[in-house]
Formats: sequence, structure tokens, C-alpha cells
Amino acid sequence: MSDVAVAEVGLFDRAWKRVSLLWRDMAATVGSPAADASWEGRMRACLEARGGEVSARARAAGLAQSYQTAPEAVDKLAFFQALASFDSDFKVVEAAMAAVSGAKDAASRAAAKAKLRQALEPPRLKLLTQFTTIPDGMKFLVDMRADLMRLMGQDPMLHALERDMRGLLANWFDLGFLELRRIDWSSPAALLEKLVGYEAVHKIRTWRDLKNRLDSDRRCYAFFHPRMPEEPLIFVEVALVQGLSGSVQKLLDEKAPVLDPRMADTAIFYSINNCQRGLDGISFGNSLIKRVVTLLAEEMRGLKTFSTLSPIPGFRRWLEEQKDAPDLLTEEESKSLAEAAGTPDGNAAIGLVLAARRPLSLPWIGKAEPVLTRLCARYLVLETGKDGRRARDPVGHFHLSNGARIERVNWRGDTSEKGLKESLGFMVNYLYDPMKIEDYHEAYVGEGSRAAPTSLRRLARGGR
Amino acid sequence: MSDVAVAEVGLFDRAWKRVSLLWRDMAATVGSPAADASWEGRMRACLEARGGEVSARARAAGLAQSYQTAPEAVDKLAFFQALASFDSDFKVVEAAMAAVSGAKDAASRAAAKAKLRQALEPPRLKLLTQFTTIPDGMKFLVDMRADLMRLMGQDPMLHALERDMRGLLANWFDLGFLELRRIDWSSPAALLEKLVGYEAVHKIRTWRDLKNRLDSDRRCYAFFHPRMPEEPLIFVEVALVQGLSGSVQKLLDEKAPVLDPRMADTAIFYSINNCQRGLDGISFGNSLIKRVVTLLAEEMRGLKTFSTLSPIPGFRRWLEEQKDAPDLLTEEESKSLAEAAGTPDGNAAIGLVLAARRPLSLPWIGKAEPVLTRLCARYLVLETGKDGRRARDPVGHFHLSNGARIERVNWRGDTSEKGLKESLGFMVNYLYDPMKIEDYHEAYVGEGSRAAPTSLRRLARGGR
Amino acid sequence: MSDVAVAEVGLFDRAWKRVSLLWRDMAATVGSPAADASWEGRMRACLEARGGEVSARARAAGLAQSYQTAPEAVDKLAFFQALASFDSDFKVVEAAMAAVSGAKDAASRAAAKAKLRQALEPPRLKLLTQFTTIPDGMKFLVDMRADLMRLMGQDPMLHALERDMRGLLANWFDLGFLELRRIDWSSPAALLEKLVGYEAVHKIRTWRDLKNRLDSDRRCYAFFHPRMPEEPLIFVEVALVQGLSGSVQKLLDEKAPVLDPRMADTAIFYSINNCQRGLDGISFGNSLIKRVVTLLAEEMRGLKTFSTLSPIPGFRRWLEEQKDAPDLLTEEESKSLAEAAGTPDGNAAIGLVLAARRPLSLPWIGKAEPVLTRLCARYLVLETGKDGRRARDPVGHFHLSNGARIERVNWRGDTSEKGLKESLGFMVNYLYDPMKIEDYHEAYVGEGSRAAPTSLRRLARGGR
Amino acid sequence: MSDVAVAEVGLFDRAWKRVSLLWRDMAATVGSPAADASWEGRMRACLEARGGEVSARARAAGLAQSYQTAPEAVDKLAFFQALASFDSDFKVVEAAMAAVSGAKDAASRAAAKAKLRQALEPPRLKLLTQFTTIPDGMKFLVDMRADLMRLMGQDPMLHALERDMRGLLANWFDLGFLELRRIDWSSPAALLEKLVGYEAVHKIRTWRDLKNRLDSDRRCYAFFHPRMPEEPLIFVEVALVQGLSGSVQKLLDEKAPVLDPRMADTAIFYSINNCQRGLDGISFGNSLIKRVVTLLAEEMRGLKTFSTLSPIPGFRRWLEEQKDAPDLLTEEESKSLAEAAGTPDGNAAIGLVLAARRPLSLPWIGKAEPVLTRLCARYLVLETGKDGRRARDPVGHFHLSNGARIERVNWRGDTSEKGLKESLGFMVNYLYDPMKIEDYHEAYVGEGSRAAPTSLRRLARGGR
Repeated sequence: MSDVAVAEVGLFDRAWKRVSLLWRDMAATVGSPAADASWEGRMRACLEARGGEVSARARAAGLAQSYQTAPEAVDKLAFFQALASFDSDFKVVEAAMAAVSGAKDAASRAAAKAKLRQALEPPRLKLLTQFTTIPDGMKFLVDMRADLMRLMGQDPMLHALERDMRGLLANWFDLGFLELRRIDWSSPAALLEKLVGYEAVHKIRTWRDLKNRLDSDRRCYAFFHPRMPEEPLIFVEVALVQGLSGSVQKLLDEKAPVLDPRMADTAIFYSINNCQRGLDGISFGNSLIKRVVTLLAEEMRGLKTFSTLSPIPGFRRWLEEQKDAPDLLTEEESKSLAEAAGTPDGNAAIGLVLAARRPLSLPWIGKAEPVLTRLCARYLVLETGKDGRRARDPVGHFHLSNGARIERVNWRGDTSEKGLKESLGFMVNYLYDPMKIEDYHEAYVGEGSRAAPTSLRRLARGGR
Repeated sequence: MSDVAVAEVGLFDRAWKRVSLLWRDMAATVGSPAADASWEGRMRACLEARGGEVSARARAAGLAQSYQTAPEAVDKLAFFQALASFDSDFKVVEAAMAAVSGAKDAASRAAAKAKLRQALEPPRLKLLTQFTTIPDGMKFLVDMRADLMRLMGQDPMLHALERDMRGLLANWFDLGFLELRRIDWSSPAALLEKLVGYEAVHKIRTWRDLKNRLDSDRRCYAFFHPRMPEEPLIFVEVALVQGLSGSVQKLLDEKAPVLDPRMADTAIFYSINNCQRGLDGISFGNSLIKRVVTLLAEEMRGLKTFSTLSPIPGFRRWLEEQKDAPDLLTEEESKSLAEAAGTPDGNAAIGLVLAARRPLSLPWIGKAEPVLTRLCARYLVLETGKDGRRARDPVGHFHLSNGARIERVNWRGDTSEKGLKESLGFMVNYLYDPMKIEDYHEAYVGEGSRAAPTSLRRLARGGR
Repeated sequence: MSDVAVAEVGLFDRAWKRVSLLWRDMAATVGSPAADASWEGRMRACLEARGGEVSARARAAGLAQSYQTAPEAVDKLAFFQALASFDSDFKVVEAAMAAVSGAKDAASRAAAKAKLRQALEPPRLKLLTQFTTIPDGMKFLVDMRADLMRLMGQDPMLHALERDMRGLLANWFDLGFLELRRIDWSSPAALLEKLVGYEAVHKIRTWRDLKNRLDSDRRCYAFFHPRMPEEPLIFVEVALVQGLSGSVQKLLDEKAPVLDPRMADTAIFYSINNCQRGLDGISFGNSLIKRVVTLLAEEMRGLKTFSTLSPIPGFRRWLEEQKDAPDLLTEEESKSLAEAAGTPDGNAAIGLVLAARRPLSLPWIGKAEPVLTRLCARYLVLETGKDGRRARDPVGHFHLSNGARIERVNWRGDTSEKGLKESLGFMVNYLYDPMKIEDYHEAYVGEGSRAAPTSLRRLARGGR
Repeated sequence: MSDVAVAEVGLFDRAWKRVSLLWRDMAATVGSPAADASWEGRMRACLEARGGEVSARARAAGLAQSYQTAPEAVDKLAFFQALASFDSDFKVVEAAMAAVSGAKDAASRAAAKAKLRQALEPPRLKLLTQFTTIPDGMKFLVDMRADLMRLMGQDPMLHALERDMRGLLANWFDLGFLELRRIDWSSPAALLEKLVGYEAVHKIRTWRDLKNRLDSDRRCYAFFHPRMPEEPLIFVEVALVQGLSGSVQKLLDEKAPVLDPRMADTAIFYSINNCQRGLDGISFGNSLIKRVVTLLAEEMRGLKTFSTLSPIPGFRRWLEEQKDAPDLLTEEESKSLAEAAGTPDGNAAIGLVLAARRPLSLPWIGKAEPVLTRLCARYLVLETGKDGRRARDPVGHFHLSNGARIERVNWRGDTSEKGLKESLGFMVNYLYDPMKIEDYHEAYVGEGSRAAPTSLRRLARGGR
């Protein structure tokens, strides 16, 4: 009971936070089931909307609070199961299906289909919508979906609920609602602290590291939603430089001199991070990159090149699968490598590289560099996933789908532990050329062909 | 062609308005159908999303512009017909219906229903969503629905499209998205000018009249949507007074002295207006009133009473229907009226009142007042619509549904031409008592019983 | 007493408005002289700062309130006389003067002068400063100076006080504190209403007229002070047009089509108004014009010409003085005019023009136009004030001092009653050429020479 | 030359930053002395205002830039010497003094004094004022005064200049201009970073420490000036607690649980810091504390006590001076201490305490505590400075002047190295009782009597 009263206090928005005693009293008389009633009973009370929609939403706020303070995952699971049980009425659906089948003309069929759609709409959608009016209700829903995705493996009845939530959120987080904001050293510390938590590509170690990434030759942009104003949805970090960057360590070096941004000719997108697990499957990255390219191109006329500096998360795994393949290396490569490494053949040398704790310290690694570079180019330009068509590397697939081109492979691009573990330290630049984005996108999505400079393409094919 | 380029300029948001030549050039290469292609062809191009989602939305912007500048209603009708034709694929729906019917267990049935819902989702929804990213895209969609509602009588295939649009807008205009803002004399003139246009209950005649309505003993609140920040959705005008107000002319008198708002004990909601035709059927009024009651109660502890001063739009029409009914008047009333008016009976006197151009000027109108007041009370408290249950008066039905109570009937409440024409000058107070709203709502919605003071109830029943 | 408490409520800023009972009680114990004590007694209490500076300012707030509600001008006069009496101590000044005279070396003389300056600082300055912490205290001080300027003729002791106030205000309203803001139709109605009140050059008649002046081909800019955020100090109205405008009626025509501002090549400054009488003698106009020229030049690259369309307030008066001068007209002019008007000579015809109620309706006015135009040019380009050097026309003197050039004389430039009364309907364009402003300023201020095109200069000299 | 052009770019405000080429060209024609001209020459050019005030301020901007980039202190000294040389004209002053002496009546004497004041106003004031229009000009002036205070010991002619600057700044930084803002974890990181730099009382060690100080049971408020919006002038840190706090280490403990601020009954002001060296002598602390007390009292009705937890910077030094005084200890104290410490007498034991590197670790320190506490109370309540009247401790003098009372002495209040070094770890609470502030202020300022509880007063007097 008391939680209803407390939730009531904060109902709707901040102005309402210090709600008068008048309305507190009303909340006490809402006659809602006690907080210890079953999930199902409390949900039914919300859906029945006794006392009107405003009261129903007050009850939903109480329900949300109980959910948030539910002690165990098992309680949340029970919550979701109760919620999933508010499905469409099968009898009504059957009747509506019959009407569709029996429709005589186009107009009556269209009407029957519309009715069927309505019949199929599960009541739980209405309850989910009631949560929007809680303060921070949108964040609550997003986090609830994240919980659901973690738990839904335990009950097949939850999958349809998850799909409902994704549908609702996709509607509310449509691009048309998002706000692009620049983040810099004048942004609220509370927001910057979140960036630190969300940055997963190249960890932010200290506030000094963070400040360096927000300096005058850097840019950081994020999408925000008007109902989650303090929560970034996705953000991208950009460095303004001269010429393509090939090393993320150099980019993040706090002691490197700051470039006058007016002298920059290239913008390097070196980290892009989704922040909300609960928005998985709702994609913002493509649009964010293009918005930022546009903004930068407009603000700084000197910028001519827009490129990423990207990790290659699947390179090592692929190479491990391939390391014994007889055609991995050309004869010449094999010979030269074997000689340098003192192994029976080149494949064995590759094996040594893969096995080494610090591969870049191998004395003959210099000899291996051209071979590894070629293999990396092959992996990026030619290797496909199971469908035999899309790029095997997931990051590569993302940028190629967006209309980017594979531009350059960088040896010693990321010498961090993570970089070595994933890709033997290689990184790659994907280049966004505004004039070609459409064509590249079509070519890749339509025919699976990947854009890359001829030289890189030739390299990938072993020089042929 | 050229309109695509122009729309592109304003794409997404204001920051993007001065988009660089870079992207203009891209727009030119979008390869979209020319602006003179058929509506259907251009819609298909948007839906196919050639060149990626960002390009598709650029094309949708071009399409929107063509729609807005379409010269004739007939073009818009064709637009809607083309749009409606992007319906769900019937074969896919049939297969999905079969899967639902054939499902063996609960889990597979739930999954099949979810798939059927998806199969039923018409592609035109996706296109409608693409319009959100245009600048002022939300207003565009709202106005488009207003157009559609005007035109859909001409083609039964448009009804399902209208339902789709309502569903989308209901989602986007959910209460959780709305912002309550106070409007006063410091608000932008452009916004105030819109109020003047939208006020339909008691017309605002001059800027001086408007300023008077925003004075320190007045309040005006509106709901706004974050993607239509300069467009009120609904607004309410409130007067802070001492005791219940019974005359709107007194409330709007520009020469009346201004009350120190701290002395007020009563808030009178004297005008509430929906502003967007395209949001018909999506209800904000109930929630707005309750939010404003809460705000005011908190801000001004002296306020004890929250009431409307409302028109009675259906009173005259009802009375005209009843004017010959033998039991309209009690014997006593009939006699006294006939005597005063010099008519054969009371009903004839009522007929004279209804026929008079200036009924309040009839010399014997004073005699008629108690009778008319009783009839008005009867109309409000007892008369029902066709369903034999809900209040016949539409404004009455709205407030009773919200949990208000019929408090007082006011003779000479609105002596304007409109007031006399609708209700012979009567107005009514509906009282919102925060402690009773739930109960009254339930009693009315559940059992059709209307809250009113005993005396008024007795009056309505003819003193019995 | 009670007014102190009330003033206390609003002390310092808005956050403090709802100050707690705690501090109200304190105010009650301030022990300040009662509100009915003499002005002098209450001022002394403020200056003594009993209880600390914060308490002193609370007392000053009470004093300010008493001033504002003082019933009669005579009370305000008494207030100023009391205030003026808090002058520097003559004995201290005498001693300090002696120290200056007796100083032996540069350093001690500098020190002695600094001490003398301090000795001369009248205590009333401190009290004036205490008023700044009242809410709207800055506006209070500005209005107080306006009062003082009206009243100071009645007592010579008030002149020094007025000079003190000007000095203080000049410091606080230094250019470095002012904010330039654009005013448009989205500005608060309360602000726009003030514009209507302050516009004195070309009266704003209706809200429609006002809206027309803020349309997309118009600009309005004003200076604001951070402590008077809702009060414009000075504002300028600009029209964006093609070519120089010569008629203010055309500029203000509400029915004239709106120009796409990107097509404009000329910005016409057609009205500039000081808003605060209490800031007389502190000049903002020069700076405002130059700031706006800069802003516009940057925003709209198409603008090439920046010019005023200005009234000529002294033309008629000058012409009346000259109307009998034998050398007013050339022989040819005199003959032609006399013939047209049927008068003995041209001077008599000029007399008729000056005497006519509607001079532009005289049937032979067309004949008079070239003569009047020449006389107007002569008035502007050659006529001087009493010092024999500065331009006789005050508006002309203002713009010439700012570095503008007399560009063109416009017949029928302002056909309003005021325009005819002041200048027989003539207006003039003063042109601001950013490349020449410095030189023109120097030439005018240094040598009294006025910039004008050769043709205009020749015309002014009677064609010689 | 070129620096003028550069400064011109940013002239006046941000809108003007991207000033058009038009005005750049103008700047080039300003005809100002080259940047390598003498300071004096360039200053004269500013004061002569060739080309008008706007041009003069452009030149002043160039001058400011040269100052800021002046390589050596010696250049700045030369700058100040040049500036100081623009003093009032002695001959004019002499004549004006003669007029004052010769004035016959009150009115003419008042006028003569006003003229003398004007004659004494040094031209350098005008130049200083011209700097206000530079972007960040106010900060420039504040920092310039800080420079001047460092350098003025080298030339007695600079003292009058410093006084001029203080006068100007005191005017511009009058309380009426200051904005009180709360600083919390949502404040810009750039601002929080400044706090870290400015906090001198209890150093902020890490961002975590900082975040802890801005948690929900903490408050931080600062004064800002509208022309230095990103620079705090002074800030105060407050802890919301239950009962008086006696230990700053407990307050700053990051692991201490966070108190629900609604449960707090006491606000502890535990750190107050001036941020701008260049505003020395212009006092904000008194007003800040009272403003914050008011705000908190209003926001949280539960707060009953407002107190500082303050350092006692002079206690150790005083004790060192006193340590051999025969009457420092009572006989009893001396005996007990000597016994505990194994010293000949109590004074020697005190000497050991003062000499110890870690006095709190002395095994018999527990015995010394009551004695030291009494001595500390005596220092605070009774000891005076050289004038024999004001409190010897500077922090004590500040709070007593503001109307606070000495409330409690806290053993182990600050066990940091600094705390031990200054005050053997003692801290003191000064209590602000809104009802008594005036009286206490008057009693202290008027008669030098310090408010303290009777028990503390008795303790200070050695129990008598």
C-alpha cells in the first residue's frame, strides 16, 4: 500500500514531485490491491483503470516501484510471466480470422484485417504504456527490457512479450525523436561519468584521459531521447587530425600536442558505443555517423576525409581456424617465414605468432608483418560468414552496410592487450565518402560486393 | 527532382538546415523517382530504402513536400489511396492465420499470434514513420491525419489507413511524452497568437482581452509535445476567484479589478480547447484538468474549490424537442407561466422563450427563470442519450466521466449570442473534488449515476 | 515598519522571494527607524549599516519601497534633498586639499590626490549602491534618476546628486555589460508590448503593424542589461530590401509583399529609440548600429549597403527662419515658383507651402519639389548650429558623429502628419560604409566636414 | 598590427566572433600604433578614441592581447607604469581646489566639489573601462589586478592605480550583480575542475572525493558574475547532518553512509573559499553565508541549526608564544600534566606537545586534552589582536563580524597534517542564529564582545 503513496509523490514529472496532501490522500483511497497482492492481481487493477486513467497510472507507478525493488531475479521472472499472460483473447482472434477469410470484397477485407490486428493487440501493451508517465519511466522500460532479455530463455512464453516491448520502444525511439548533442568538457560531470561507464571499445582510464578525449581537437556526439535526457543512447568519439590515423594509442596519447582544429583535414571516428542494453535491435549507429559527418563537414570546411579507426574483433579467431590450411600462404611467404622463425613451414610460424604471449616481441615479427597484413586484408575484403556473402567481421559488416569502404589495414594499430588478443594488434580504417555512400551501400546490400581500393583488393587476393 | 534537394536541406533538425554542399550532391544522386512520378512509385522508392535508411528518409522528405504543395484535394485523395494500397500481403496473412489455428500448445500459439500480428502490419506504417525525421514532421503527420479525416468519406479503403495513423499518433502522443507548460503574458507572441486562433469556447476578441486572461489572477496551461514545441495540443484557462463564478461575462470583464491571487479560494476552469484536429480521438482533457488542479493546489494553499464554468451546448435543442411534452411542467409552473406570458398554457410560454430573438428581454422572463432553471437542472442531472444511460449533454458527459460532480446551474451565465443560442444563457459548474474523483468516476462509468448536491437533484426531479 | 518586512520578502533575487519566516522575524528585529521616520533618519540608518551590510540592504529595500509609494512629487523632492545632504565632509576635503598642495614629490602627490578623491566621494553613493540588491533594483535606480532630472530644477543642490547618479549608472551600463538580443515575433508578448510603448519615431499602431515589423524581411535588435533583463535600453528596427528605401510609408505597408531576405542587398535602419529616460546622457546608439551592421553583414552575405532612413526634425523650423531671406532661392527658382504659385516671388510661394495645411496637395507642388529638395540638401549638408560647425540637424549630427555619410534626400519620404510637420515630408538616408566609418568620423569630429556624394554636395550649394 | 586584427575578431561577444571580412578590413585601417609601439603610445591611441569609441575599444583589445602575451614580469611592470602615468592633470586639479576654497555658498561649493572630483578622475580609468568589451574582459581585468598586486611593491606610483582598479571592480562586482548558483554533480566538468583548483581549506584529492562532497546530503553554492559566467567568485561547501559535526574527517569520509537530507536538522558550513586573487578586498563571504542559510532554511524546513566547522589557523602559533608563560596553566593542570608527561612542569609538557611530530600519538595525550581544550577556548573567546579588541584568530574575526557565535571547540576536529600543524587538530563551530545575527554583529563590532555559550566562556576563563 505504502509504495503506491510514495510512487504517487513523484508521479508524472518533476513539477509534480512535491504533490499536495490533497492528492496523497486520494492515492490512499485508490483502493488498489495491496503491494503484497499477486503480480497478476495488481496488473489487472491497472488495466481495469478503476477510477479513471490517472488513477490507473498511479497504480502502475506503484507496480513499477515494486518491480524495481523486487529482491530476486525469480520475482522479476514471475512479473514477466504475469505480464505475458495478458495476451489477446483467442476466441476474439478466431472470430476475427474467420471474418478476414470470409470477406467478400477488398474494402471489407481491409476492414476485417484492421479488426484482426486490433484483436491481436495484447492488453499487456496498454500496461506497458502506462509506465511512461512515471518519472524516468522511459528508462524504466528500457531497463525492464534488458532484464527481460536476460531472463526470457527460461520461459518460451516470454518471447512474444519481448517482441511487444521491442515494437513499443522502436516506435518511441524512432530517429525522429532523437536529439543529437555534442558532449564536451563543459557537459555535466554526471553525464561524463556515464560515458566512462559505457565506453567499451577503448576504456577510459582516468578523468585526465576523458578530458583529453574532449579537447579542442576532439569531438564527441551522442543521441538522446527527450524522455531520457540524461542518458546517452549511443555516442561516437572523433579525432580531428591530419591524414588517416593508423594507431589508436597515438590518438589517445595524453601527451601528444593538441592540433588547431582548423588545420585538420581528416575526422577519425575511433569509438562508437551503444549505451542501452534494453534498446538492442533498435539501430542508431548508421544514422549517428552520417549526422556527425554532416555536422563536421559544415562546421569545418577544411575536413575532406571522414574515416573510422576500427577494431577487427574476429581476425585472430579466423586465423586460428585457418592456421593449418595448406593454401593459407603462398609458397614464397611460407619459405620466408619458416626461415625467419626456424619452423618447418610458414604455417608453423603463424602458429607461433598465435601462441606467443607477446607476439609483437618475437624477434622475427618484422618478417611476418607483410604476410599478416595480407592475411588481415584477405579476412576483411574476402572472407564471408555462413551465408557465403556478408563480411565475416561483424564491425566490417556494420560499416559496409552503412555504405563505407575498407580503406587501409594498420599494423600495430592497437597494441593494447585487447587489441593483440582480438586482432594481433591490427586495426582498419573504414572510409565514409558522402558522394559514394549510396552506391557502396547498394552494392554491398544488393550484391555483397565490398568497396576497397584496388591495391588493397589485390593484396587481399595474394597479389593476384 | 528539385524538391528532393530542397527538402534535403532541412532534413532531420535545425542544425542540419544549412547542410553542406557535400550532402546536397548526394541528394542529387539518390536516384529517386522524379517528383512527377506517381505517388505510388515514389512511395515504393521510400519503402525499398535503396541506399539505406538515411537516403530513404531524404526521399520521404521530398514526398512530404510534394504532398504539402499538392494543389488540389483530389491530389491528396490520390496520395491517401496510394498510401492505403501498401497494405499487408494477404497470402502471408492467410498462412499466418493457418499457423495460429494449427498451433498445438500455448507457447507455439503465442508465437504464431505474434507472427500473425507482424504479418498484418501494413508497410505504409513504415513510410509514415519515415516522415518523423522531417523538420516539423510530427506536425506534418498530425495535419495529414486531419486531411485524411476530411477526405476519407470518399473511399472506404481509407478507413484502415486512418486507424493506422491514429494508432501511431496515440503512441507518440502518449501522456508520458507531453509537457505541461504555463502560458502567460511573457510567452512568445507567436504562441499567444495561436491561442487566439484555437480558442473556440469564448472567443478572444483583442490582445487586450487576451492580456486580461493572462493577468495575475488568471492561469493558462497547455500540453505540448517535444517534437511540436511551438504548438499547443490542448489548453485550459483558469480564473482565480472568491466563491464559485456563475457568469462568464463577469470573468472576462476587462475592467473588473484584479484579485490578489493569494486571496483566492476557488479556481474556475472556464475554457478548455483542443487545438489539433489531427489528434481527434486521442484524449488529453481529463489528464490536463487533473494536472492543473494538482499544480494549483500545491502552489496556492488557499485554494479549496476547483470547478469549471461550462457551457451546456445541448440544452436548447433538448428543450425544443420537449416543448410540447405534456409533463414538461408541473401544473403550478404551467399556470404561473401562462399567466405571466399571456399564453394558453406554460408550454406555449416556453415556446415563446425559444422563439424570441432576445429571450432575456421578455418582460416576464423573471417569472420564467425558476422554471427554466429547473428544466436545465433536469436536463443535466437526469436526461440521457440514446443508450439510456450516459448524460445527454456532451460536455456534461466529459466532466462526469472524469469524476466531476454537477454543482450549480447559473441563470444568465453566458449572455453572449452563442450562449443564448445554445442554452438560453445558462451555464453550469462541474466541481472537481480531489477526494471524490475516483468514486464519482466509478459510479458514473460503472452505474451511470451522476454526482450532484441533493438540492440540485431534487430540483431536477421537480422538487420531489 | 511593515514595509521593511514586505521588502525583505523579495530581497536580493527571486530565489529569495519566498524567504522563510526565520528571516522575516529577523527583519522585524532590524531595529530600523519606522517607515514614518524622516527620510534623513532612515538614510542614516542604512549608511550606518547597523547589524551588518545585509541588514543595511534590507533597510534600503524598505526605503526604496517608501520612495516608490511616495504620494507626491514633493515627497520625492524631499527624498532627493535628504539624499543630496549626505555629501563629503568639507573639513576632511580641506585637509586633503592641503596635503595635495603640500606634497613634495610625485609619489606623495599621487597618493595625496588619491586620498583627496576618496575624501570627495559623497556617502550618498554608498546608499545608492545599496539599492542594487533589491529585486529590479537597477530599474529602480534608472527610474529614480528620471525623477530626479524632472525635479532637480527646483533645487540647485540636486545637480551634484544627479551627476553622481549618472556616474554610477554609466559605470554599470558600460558597453561591456550590455547584451545584444534580437527581438522577433517569438519574443515575449510583455516585451513586445514595451516596444510599442517606447517606439517614438514611427508609432506602432496595432499588433498587426508590430508583427509586420518583425516579419522575415525585418529585423529588430535591442541592448539589454543583465540586471534589467526584461527592459530594452535602446532598440533599432531594420528592413531588408533591394536598393535604398526612400519612403517610410512603403516600408511600413502591411500589405506589401514579404521579400525573401536572401534576396536583399540593403539594410535600412528606419527607427532607433532610446527607452530609458533615466539613462539620458549615456550613449548606446552608435555602438548598437555598428554591432547590428556587423551581425547582419555576417549573417547575410548578400547585404552590401547599410543605411538609415531618417527623419529631419529641424528642416521646417530652419526653413521658416529663412523664408524671407533674399538669397534663399536662385533667380531662376524664384521666377519659376512665383509663376507656378501665382505669388509675387518665390519666397512667397515657399511661405504658402509652409502655411498650407496639406502642402503636398497644393496643385503646383510638383514645381516646388526640386527647389525644396535643394533647400533640404542645403540644410543637411551645409547648415550649422550655433557653434558654426556641427550639423544643425540633431539627427544628422548623431549619424555624422558616428561616421555615416549623407547619402540621399527623399521627397515624400514621410507623408504622415508628423513627417509633414517636421520636414514637409522629406526624409534622408545616412549611409554606414564600414570601410569609411573611421575616416568620416575623424573628418567630421576633427574638422567639421560632412561626407556626402559630390552631386548632393553640389545640389546643396545651389548647383555650384 | 596583426594582433589588433586578431583581437578584433572576438570583439564584444560571441556572436561577434566570426566577424565579417568587412570589419576585419576596417580594423586594418584603424591606423593604430603598431604592436611594437611603446605601451604609452598605444594607451594614448586608445584614450584619444580616434575614429570613435568602437574603434578605440578595438585598439584596447589589441593592447590587452599584447599584455597577456607579454613575455616577462618586467614588461607587465612597464605596462602598469605607463598606465599609472595617465593621471589627472595637476593644474586642472589646482584650479578646481581653488574654486572649492573660494566658493561662497553651499550650492556653489557643492558644484565646485563635484568639479574637483571630476578633475581628479584619472584618464587611465577610461582605458580600464575599455577593456570590458573584450570577450572575457572582466576576467582579464580581475587577473590584471592580481598581477598588479604582485608587482606594485616595486614602484610606489602604482598604489594609486591599484586603488583605482579596486574601486572599479568593487562597483562592477557589487552584490547586486552577483548570481547565486548551486553546484552539484550535474554541473559542467570544467567548472568542477575549477573548484578542485580553488579549494584551499580542505584539499579535494580525487574526483571521487569531489563527487562525495556533492552528494545528496551535501550542498555547494557559489557566487558568479554575469560577465564571468564560468568563474566562481567564492564558494561554500555545506554538509547536511544530524547534530553539530565536530570532525571534518568524518564529514569527508567517502565511505560514510549518505543521509536522507530530509532527516537533517543541521547544516554545517565546512569550507568557504575565495577564488579570485584579483578581487581581494572586495568581500562576498558574509553575504554568501547568509544567502545560503536563507535558501536552505526555506528548502528544508527540518533544518534548525546553521553552523560552521572551522579551522583555527592561529592557535598553535599563539600557544607557542605562550608556552612559557607562568600563568598559562592552573596549578592543578600543571601538576596533572607534568605527572602524565614526566616533565618538570605542565608548561614543559605543553612544549612536548608542540614539539611532537605526531602529537596525537603521545601516550599521555588523553590527559592533555582537557587542558588543551581549555587553552583553545581561551584563544578563541578571549585573546585579542594588537588592537586589544578584535579576535586574534582571523577566521574567528570573520565569523564574529558576520554576527556568528563561538559554539563549540572540537578535539580531533581535523587530524590532517595541516590541521595538526595549525591548531593541534582542533576545530571550532561558529553558529549562525538568524534571530541573533544583528545583535551579535553589533555587540562585536560595537563593543568587541564575542557571543559564546556561558559554559564555553567559563571554560575559556579557566573555570572561573
